[in-house]
This record gives sequence, C-alpha cells and structure tokens, in this order.
Amino acid sequence: MDVNEFREFAKATIDYIADYHENIRDKQVLPDISPGYIKDKVPSDPPKEGEHWGNLLKDVNDVILPGLTHWQSPNFYAYYPASYSFPSVVGDLLSTGLGCVGLNWITGPAITELEVVMMDWLGKMLDIPLAFLNCSEGPGGGIIKGTASEATLVCLLAAKDKTVRRVKTLRPDLCDSDIKGKLVAYSSDHSNSSIEKAGLIGSVPMRLLLSDDEGRLNPQFLKEAIEQDLKLGLFPCYVVATLGTTGTCSFDNLQEIGPICEEFNVWLHVDAAYAGAAFVCPEYRYLKNGLEYAESFNFNAHKFMLINFDCSILWVKNAFNLINAFTVERPYLKHEYDSAPEYMHWQIPLGRRFRALKLWFMIRTYGVEGIRKYIRKQTGLINYFSEILKKDSRFEVCCKNLALLCFRVRGDDNLTKMLLNKLYERKQIYVISYTYKKNTVIRFSINSNECSEADLHFAYTEISNQVDDILNKNFIVITKEVNFKIEFDKSMELENIH
Amino acid sequence: MDVNEFREFAKATIDYIADYHENIRDKQVLPDISPGYIKDKVPSDPPKEGEHWGNLLKDVNDVILPGLTHWQSPNFYAYYPASYSFPSVVGDLLSTGLGCVGLNWITGPAITELEVVMMDWLGKMLDIPLAFLNCSEGPGGGIIKGTASEATLVCLLAAKDKTVRRVKTLRPDLCDSDIKGKLVAYSSDHSNSSIEKAGLIGSVPMRLLLSDDEGRLNPQFLKEAIEQDLKLGLFPCYVVATLGTTGTCSFDNLQEIGPICEEFNVWLHVDAAYAGAAFVCPEYRYLKNGLEYAESFNFNAHKFMLINFDCSILWVKNAFNLINAFTVERPYLKHEYDSAPEYMHWQIPLGRRFRALKLWFMIRTYGVEGIRKYIRKQTGLINYFSEILKKDSRFEVCCKNLALLCFRVRGDDNLTKMLLNKLYERKQIYVISYTYKKNTVIRFSINSNECSEADLHFAYTEISNQVDDILNKNFIVITKEVNFKIEFDKSMELENIH
Repeated sequence: MDVNEFREFAKATIDYIADYHENIRDKQVLPDISPGYIKDKVPSDPPKEGEHWGNLLKDVNDVILPGLTHWQSPNFYAYYPASYSFPSVVGDLLSTGLGCVGLNWITGPAITELEVVMMDWLGKMLDIPLAFLNCSEGPGGGIIKGTASEATLVCLLAAKDKTVRRVKTLRPDLCDSDIKGKLVAYSSDHSNSSIEKAGLIGSVPMRLLLSDDEGRLNPQFLKEAIEQDLKLGLFPCYVVATLGTTGTCSFDNLQEIGPICEEFNVWLHVDAAYAGAAFVCPEYRYLKNGLEYAESFNFNAHKFMLINFDCSILWVKNAFNLINAFTVERPYLKHEYDSAPEYMHWQIPLGRRFRALKLWFMIRTYGVEGIRKYIRKQTGLINYFSEILKKDSRFEVCCKNLALLCFRVRGDDNLTKMLLNKLYERKQIYVISYTYKKNTVIRFSINSNECSEADLHFAYTEISNQVDDILNKNFIVITKEVNFKIEFDKSMELENIH
Repeated sequence: MDVNEFREFAKATIDYIADYHENIRDKQVLPDISPGYIKDKVPSDPPKEGEHWGNLLKDVNDVILPGLTHWQSPNFYAYYPASYSFPSVVGDLLSTGLGCVGLNWITGPAITELEVVMMDWLGKMLDIPLAFLNCSEGPGGGIIKGTASEATLVCLLAAKDKTVRRVKTLRPDLCDSDIKGKLVAYSSDHSNSSIEKAGLIGSVPMRLLLSDDEGRLNPQFLKEAIEQDLKLGLFPCYVVATLGTTGTCSFDNLQEIGPICEEFNVWLHVDAAYAGAAFVCPEYRYLKNGLEYAESFNFNAHKFMLINFDCSILWVKNAFNLINAFTVERPYLKHEYDSAPEYMHWQIPLGRRFRALKLWFMIRTYGVEGIRKYIRKQTGLINYFSEILKKDSRFEVCCKNLALLCFRVRGDDNLTKMLLNKLYERKQIYVISYTYKKNTVIRFSINSNECSEADLHFAYTEISNQVDDILNKNFIVITKEVNFKIEFDKSMELENIH
C-alpha cells in the first residue's frame, strides 16, 4: 500500500466511522450472534498473497459489525462509559500515524513533555492538591497509564517497596522476604475487582472490609483491622479508597480514612476511575475532600472525560517511590525536577504511545467549560430518568450518583431478575445488574455522548412494557412462590466482571 | 465538534500524516531541543473555552514536530524498529473510531473472536507448535498484550502460581508464603531489562546467568544454577530464554535449554520480541528449534512485523495457568474451548482495545508473501551495509543477525566512543552503543520500511567522515594516552534503557 492508497483508504475509513456514528440508533445495541460466530466468516488460514484494501471495509461491515456490542449507542447503559470524542479520535490517529514511541526522553522528547503539561492541565482542572503536579516544587507528578488496574498495581508495588525499606530501618533483624511475607493491604468489598487482583499479583493480601449500607469503606473497621494486624505482627502497607464505586458510584470518606492512614504510616491510594472526571465541575469537588491525605490518585480520562480508551491518569506525591520500585538500576541520586521525567521508570512497560496528543486535542477543542457542560448534561439526564421512574409506582430508585442510578421493581426480588432477563433477551437496551442492600438492582448509567431525553423515553418504554408483561403473566407465580429462584445469564452480573 | 467537522479534521490529519511520511528524509532524525523545551510553547493552564480545530495541526507542526525523534526516518538505526504500515494505521484508526472496548465476551464478541483467529493466523505463519494455537484440541491459545514486559510478567506470575500449587502437594508442611519466599527464576545477563523487572515486580529473584561470548544463555550454567538452588532448598520456577537479544540479536539454544527445564519441571518462557517475526520466513525457522519445550512464547508484532505499537503476541500451552493466576474468582470448572475465551482472565488489565483489527488489515493487505518480502528486504539491507563496512579497513563488523549488526572502529575502544559522540552531536543518523566482548560497539538496526541502499550510503558517508575527523585530530592523543576516558552521553547506551 503506497502513500496515496493510504490517503484513499484512511479517508474512506473516516467516512465509515462518521457514518457509523450518524446511524448508531439503527443498530441493535447487543448483537444476535453466538460464541464462535466468526469461524464461518473468516478463513482459518492467512492469505498467501495480499489483496486490495477495497475489500476490507466491506468485510468490516459483514463480519465485524454483526458481532459488535455498540458502546457508543445511546441504548448502552451498562458498566460505565467508554469515553469518546472526535478530537480524541483524531489525536489518537495522529499518534499512530506519526509512528513514534517513547522509551527514555531522547527517543521522543515531545511525547514526554506534552504529557507533563497535560498532567498539570488535568490536575488544575480537577483542583487536586498542588503536591501532585509536575509543576510543583516537590517530587510529585502525573503520568498516563493504560488502565486503573495498572495504576493500582503500580502504587501497591511502590507502597510495598517503601514499606519494606521503612520496616528494615526499624527492624534490622528482619530480611526482605520476612517483611514481604507480612505485608497487608485494605480496601472495601465494594471496590473494583482490579484492587483485589493487584493484591493477588503483587503478593500482598488485600483485606476487603465490609462496607456500610451505602457501599462505603467503614473507617472504624479500617482502623480496627490495622490495629488487629499490627498485633499479629503484620505490616499494613496500602489502603485503596474509592471515589465512585463501580457498583453504585459511592464515595468513601477521605476525611475520615486519611487520618487513619497517616497515623499508621500506610500509603493511601485513591481510585476515582469513573468519578474523578466530575471534579472538573466545582459543585462535585466536595466529594474529594481529604484528598490531601492520599499518596496517589487515579482517574480514567477514558471513562467520563471524552478520551478514547486507553488513558488512565495517575498522580503521585513522590515519584521517587515509583522510581525506586521499578528501576532495575536504582537511581538514588536526586533527579532534576525542572527538566523532564523519565516516565519509563514510573511504570511496568518500557515503551509508551503518544497518548498526550488525544488529551491536548480534546481539551483545546472543548475547553474546560465544554467539558463541564458535557458532565452536567450527562448528570442532568440521569436526574431526568430518575424523575420518569419516580412517577411510576412500580419502580423504586435505590441510589443515584453522578450519571448512574440503580433501580428495582418494587416487591419480590424475582421481578427485577425477570425484567433483566427479558431486557437481555430482547437486546433493545443494555443494562446490567448489581446487588444493593441485598436486593437485585438494575444499574443504569448514562454513557453515550449522544444520549438524549428521547432516548431515555425509549428506554423507559422498553422497561415499562417488559414489566407489564411480567406482571400480567407472572403475578400468581410471584405472589405464590416467593422463593422461586430465577437464574439469569451470568454475563449480566457486574460482580462477575467489573 | 460535530460529525462533519470530524470528517474534515480527520481527513486533514490523514493528509498531514501522509505528507509527514513523504517528506521524512527532510527531517533531522534527532531533535535540536533541550529538556523542558515545551514550557515556552504550551500555556501552563488549560483553555477555558474551546477553539476551532484548525489551530491544532498548525500547533502540531510548531510545537510537536521540533521535539520529535523520527522513528520512521530511514536515518533511525537505534534500538529495534517501531513497526509501521499503512493498513495497520487504518486498522488502529477504525478500532478507536468505533469506540468499542472489550471486557468479557458479550461486551465485544467481535473483539475477542477476531483476536482468536488472528492468533491462529500468526501462529501458523510462524510455524509454532500446534499446542499453542486456539484452534488446537488442548487448552493452549494466543492473546494480544501491550508489551513484552507485560507478557513476561504475566507468565512469571502464572509460573509462580503453578509452582506454589505443585510444591504444596509435595510439601504439605509449607504454607504459600513460605514457598513464595523460596522461588527463583533464571535468564541470561543479555536478556532484556524487562525480564529482570518482571522478577522485581513479581517478587521472584531473577538470576541473570553469565552468557557465553556470543551473548547466549549457557545451558551448563543454567543446569548448575538450578541444582545449586535446589540444594539450598529453593524452588526454581521460571526460565526466560531469548531468541534475538536486544543487544546483538543472539539466539539462546532452546534444544539444550528445553530439556533442562523439562527435567526440573520449570516453566520455560521464550522471549522473541524482535526476532519472532522472522520465523514467517522458512529460512530462519531453525533458530526456534526446541520451541516445543516452551510453556509460553512471545513476540512483538510491533517490532518487526509491520504493526504499529502496541501489539505484543503471547501464546501459552495451557491457558488455565493464566486463568488460575489472574481470576479473582477462580474458575476451576473446565472451560469450553470450542467457544470463545474470556481474555480478561488472561491478563492484568480488565479492558482491551480492538487490536486484532490492525493485524487483520495488515495481513490481508500484505499477504504472507508480502510480509516475507519485507523481512527479506530488511535483512538484505543489513548484508549490504555489512559489505560496505567490510570494504573499509577502519571498521570491524563484530556480529550480524537478522537486520541488526554491531561494528566498531578498529583499534582503541575510545575511537568508537568518540565516533558515537560525534554522531550523536551531529544528529544526522541515530545509532546507540552496546558492549560486546568487552568492547564498545555501535548497534546498527535497519528500522524504517523506507530504508534503501542510498540511505545506507548516506549513513556510511556520515560515519566515515566523522572517523576521518577523529583520526586526523586525535591520532596522537589516542596512541599516547590509551587510558584516556571518553565520557559519552548516557542516553546513547542501550544498557541504560533497553
């Protein structure tokens, strides 16, 4: 393919993408296919000779489209958003198109340097403590990672390394592996599964403490757990608090958790994967009060800030904690912070994409006010939907935070389960379930940028019709056999995936 | 930005990228800037209001381009290639443009299913053992990861988990943390730094064994090290062999290493990050003889197979080893292998980009023969350059493998160091150094797809002129003061980065 064919092919693909978005409402949000569907559509062996690009977009239409779940459809209310914006798509395209990769600074100075500035822009937009910014005096700074899973793991490893070094000075009788075998970390049982996975990977047991009724980490339980573990001779090293849990978008109270971490010298990591973006709006900033206690703070620009996957932002108060944990040749010499950081020592992989470009393009095109407008539109829509549900006595809105709400059908839990089953079978809107205060609830998250009040009426009508159907057909079954167990597809359960 | 502005902006960006490539030789491969250069060019605060996209490409030109190291320039001979092809760029664009993310199967069936088929296509192209393929009977399979660092780490963690479970059945007196504290892994001192980093992150000491003169893992040393460690009561669990080392593209002998791993029940992981792609050509396949002993095999399609970063391919013989290590809720139930795998349980992050699209587009456009032609063109060019150097008695070609060679200036080591310094100051071609048989050598890797014989003559002329200059000016210094120490920029040393 020469450069002129590239121009032609790439521009045809731009039109394909634009058309896809313009006609997104025509596509059923969930596909009508079964596992293994692609085997009949794609040859089992690679082609010996190349073919003209003209066939490719046709095959995308015939082979790929029928097997896609349409995350950008207004009818996709499952999980949290896979963020999207046109300038971000173009920024990502440019990054790929230039074909540059960042290792150390000299292999791509602009890659590192634009990232440094973008991390400061974002930090200022979210009004986080100055100590996290690259432009501050101290050793703090921000970096783009792929996912929150990576951010949580990286900080756990840094906390582990830091704790081992601290304990060694206090207890010179212990060797590294003795100390490592006695480290312990904490989070709530409503935190994302990636938190538990980080403990598993980093070989630090992650105690998932019982959260309160609203899904928040209970500070008293945390304190007791740390005290218990200290008595057992263990070394508490890492606490993960969540701002905006995956299930119900609950907010842990950092003002209460922070002082406990400070008292016991434990690294506090704050996971705001979804909710972090909302702090761009001053009216939501109270939810992060106490963030000054955190050693590290993470949010996914690819969840609720118009940036395409992947783009997870991590700030730390002291980058040397990462550098000391990840650098094979450990640089204990003071790094000059007025020059550029070597991000390769802040992360697991060595190479890096030029992900700052998509942030630069999006922020400049939207402006801070434009991003606020987007966040407020999405949270406004959830309020609108909540009002629709509240007017219908069959439904109970159980909780509502930012652009997420959870609701259920009043009465027996099986009604909600049957509703989920029907919605999933019909594939007209995509929602998933969660367990809230021992009840099955339907998580409903405003995800698509295109979502409108009309789309919410469509969703409500779909839900309402299915409930009509269930209540008409099953009233007797339900009232007579309260313990009748409804089995529903595992893939609808958030607990099974998130 | 509405969809019509997107069409306009994205197409302008396509032209920008195409023009960039058409004029790549006009750009100095290394930039003329100092750390922190961007601060004067980008505002320190984000804009309040959005602006028209028309300004963005102009600013890319003014702010980003002057700070880029041009990986796609034919004058970029450092590291290994950052692979590039136009169909791969378009495949990546489509992935971003559709805005779909893979979690479990139902969130993007086509994302998983196309990946399953592409892994088989690649496995067949590279002629790897059938047991690694998704289409084989057993529990083997392939997955796309971001980087080789991730692949090595993931397999180390799986090997760790597997070994702990194995040892527990033999030694029920030991608890998990006792066993974990006694695990040990092995590689050669010429393996990539990411191998050592994997040990650091996974808390398994990585013994880097002295390699032979050619940079190959010494099988005898490996056997002795394992036996020593067993005597000390340790549990050997993981060996990483390299096909195509980062420094000199040396090949460990799997036929000798494999039986040792088998004898001691140790997981053999084969890292062929760069060289793996070459196995698409039958004439290079003998270099992977013995691969049947490996439990896992990794190569970077983003290094030497025309796929843009990131796209690292990992195959394992038994996916349950990954699933058991990474699944928070462990599914010991037999998975149906004739349906689709749940890749989220094979990796650290939860979310996944649709990276199979760029593989599909590239392989179909090039065909297997087209990819072979590309590999042979690049290896042919290194032979051509080797012949040029050999005709000049001032140079010694120290080693040559695939599309990489290492050479030095005959005589005192300082001559080569001075040459490196001059090349780095002049920024006309980009090479880096390595230490080979105790001498400083210049690594010269054919990277750009556009590289031609004419470009190699340009590189040779640049090198030759600088050597002329050094020999004329420094002949007396060099011959009189053999121990005169030349300090050269650390960022030129591969050891400092790779």
